Amino acid sequence: MSEITDIAGPMPAAPDFAGVTCPAPLRDQPRVVMGHGGGGALSSELVQHIFAPAFGGDLLAGLGDSAAFTLGGARLAFSTDSFVVRPLFFPGGSIGDLAVNGTVNDLAMSGARAAYLSCGFILEEGVEVPLVSRVAEALGAAARSAGVEIATGDTKVVEAGRGDGVYLNTAGIGLVPDGVDIRPQRAEPGDVIIVSGAIGVHGVAVMSVRDGLEFGVEVESDCAALGGLVETMLAVTPDLHVLRDPTRGGLAAALNEIAVAATVGVVIQEHAVPVPAPVANACAMLGLDPMYVANEGKLVAFVPRADADAVLQAMREHPLGRESAVIGECVETHPGMVVARTGLGGTRVVDLPVGEQLPRIC
Amino acid sequence: MSEITDIAGPMPAAPDFAGVTCPAPLRDQPRVVMGHGGGGALSSELVQHIFAPAFGGDLLAGLGDSAAFTLGGARLAFSTDSFVVRPLFFPGGSIGDLAVNGTVNDLAMSGARAAYLSCGFILEEGVEVPLVSRVAEALGAAARSAGVEIATGDTKVVEAGRGDGVYLNTAGIGLVPDGVDIRPQRAEPGDVIIVSGAIGVHGVAVMSVRDGLEFGVEVESDCAALGGLVETMLAVTPDLHVLRDPTRGGLAAALNEIAVAATVGVVIQEHAVPVPAPVANACAMLGLDPMYVANEGKLVAFVPRADADAVLQAMREHPLGRESAVIGECVETHPGMVVARTGLGGTRVVDLPVGEQLPRIC
Repeated sequence: MSEITDIAGPMPAAPDFAGVTCPAPLRDQPRVVMGHGGGGALSSELVQHIFAPAFGGDLLAGLGDSAAFTLGGARLAFSTDSFVVRPLFFPGGSIGDLAVNGTVNDLAMSGARAAYLSCGFILEEGVEVPLVSRVAEALGAAARSAGVEIATGDTKVVEAGRGDGVYLNTAGIGLVPDGVDIRPQRAEPGDVIIVSGAIGVHGVAVMSVRDGLEFGVEVESDCAALGGLVETMLAVTPDLHVLRDPTRGGLAAALNEIAVAATVGVVIQEHAVPVPAPVANACAMLGLDPMYVANEGKLVAFVPRADADAVLQAMREHPLGRESAVIGECVETHPGMVVARTGLGGTRVVDLPVGEQLPRIC
Repeated sequence: MSEITDIAGPMPAAPDFAGVTCPAPLRDQPRVVMGHGGGGALSSELVQHIFAPAFGGDLLAGLGDSAAFTLGGARLAFSTDSFVVRPLFFPGGSIGDLAVNGTVNDLAMSGARAAYLSCGFILEEGVEVPLVSRVAEALGAAARSAGVEIATGDTKVVEAGRGDGVYLNTAGIGLVPDGVDIRPQRAEPGDVIIVSGAIGVHGVAVMSVRDGLEFGVEVESDCAALGGLVETMLAVTPDLHVLRDPTRGGLAAALNEIAVAATVGVVIQEHAVPVPAPVANACAMLGLDPMYVANEGKLVAFVPRADADAVLQAMREHPLGRESAVIGECVETHPGMVVARTGLGGTRVVDLPVGEQLPRIC
């Protein structure tokens, strides 16, 4: 019997959450709070109520990690992220690694292999030039490792006290292979949900060296470029339904966004989600739920049931997917909602986080 | 006799500047200064000595406003800029207008029509949500006006005192028409140099409302999307050699960059450069040279002599090129150097600015 049946088989009928109401809109807040950058409900409201109506167009409303379109006959994916992580260097990576891998991964979540990146620096007056140089070298090394070229850039400087050393933005372009159509809207009941490895590592690694919060923990950020892992998965089947890298807001935010975009329910087996002991311990100490902690080198995949065993096998043979695990399935009931089967046999709702547990984590 | 011969004809043989030496490298500065973001020699040294070696690759070293490459069979241009202008709204525009038009124009300077933009916000905690909304609406309106779609975005929030309200980054993708190859390296002796209108207007408009510096001046920023003007010019001939939008560092920086990239000399007739009286007066008051003041809706073109009359005529028939003027020519002598014939019949070197006259102008 396959592992997938093991997970999905004994799961009872999902409970009826028809009476559960969503939190009231938060968009009437008069001022921006840190949570508006947290990748949760507040971020989402900025996009839905301010940016999407102001910008118009359909692509932004698609809720994907990247936009996909055809230009000059080429099927392209296009994505951007800004990076404000503090500190700039942390166990297992740096703002330079994040800036490359974050955008490469957003493209990979459309099935695209990143080809070119742009890079914008916003430097604070007074930051040491050798530090800028170290960041640039980390960027360059990460780009070479991911097989992407930094093609164009820009530098601005703001007065001391108007920035924080180095802020970065990258945008990236990649080609989407023919026959591939990966986006949140394609999740459907019956899809098997696979995560590519342990969650919560990046967030805990960064917080362990945050000023005023330092604690001893033996984890390094999982920051990595996932283009190769996605290619491995696409070699099994081009018909992957959804891919998402659970960064800000963690696995909980990623699953909620997919459930809403596709109007499906998501059920996960809590015990099946891989959480390393040091992450679990650090989260217990900080009062965090690992499901909400950022990852920078993991993906969650919604895969047709018939292909799931083969995709899981291929993922486990890739260096970045050795600990891949089936964590749940997509269901028809409670559309737009994520529920977890707990270790005690109970069920809990896994909400979209409202704001930000860990500020400036990427 | 054409206006072009009028300009180029009576110009004496260019003087010999073989003995002039360049300023010493500034890259050994231990800390970043405002001038590193000024688009002059300090910016250039960051790129040449830190970013280009760290990133590797040929495209970044091409010195263009955008990178051009072929991907999936499509000839694409790709560019990015961050925007930190202060104040966010100024006479004739806003950070939102700049963020769209700046990137659209960088693409247009490769002859590309912008198709899609990304947009990254870095918000400061505590900024008023309605202000963010106004910026977003300005962005959206500018994008619709320029015929470009904002396809993907990102929002980060930093603590109060680590930002300045709103910083923006845009990156853009456009298609380069077949047969068009516009880049700084293509300037050649004999090329006629045309500017599309009055210079220095944007910088003066922003400074006139800068905190602590307010002065009465009747100019509005020239901020505009130049894609349509460039299409008009390309309809005359696809063989435009160089286009550049003289933003930070002004016309002086743009001409110097082209002279260096193509190893040619540039001679301009100072009196032929259109400087409106309010700009000249404000510059006199502030101790600035209009040649170094930023523009956000102007371009400078290096055009083969045979096509120059027709290109000039077409530019003047476009709403954004009515005041186009021939300002000089490209010569074989003093390669890498820009000289101006002054009103008194003398000659002066127009240096690349070192740092920044007007901080945070875009």
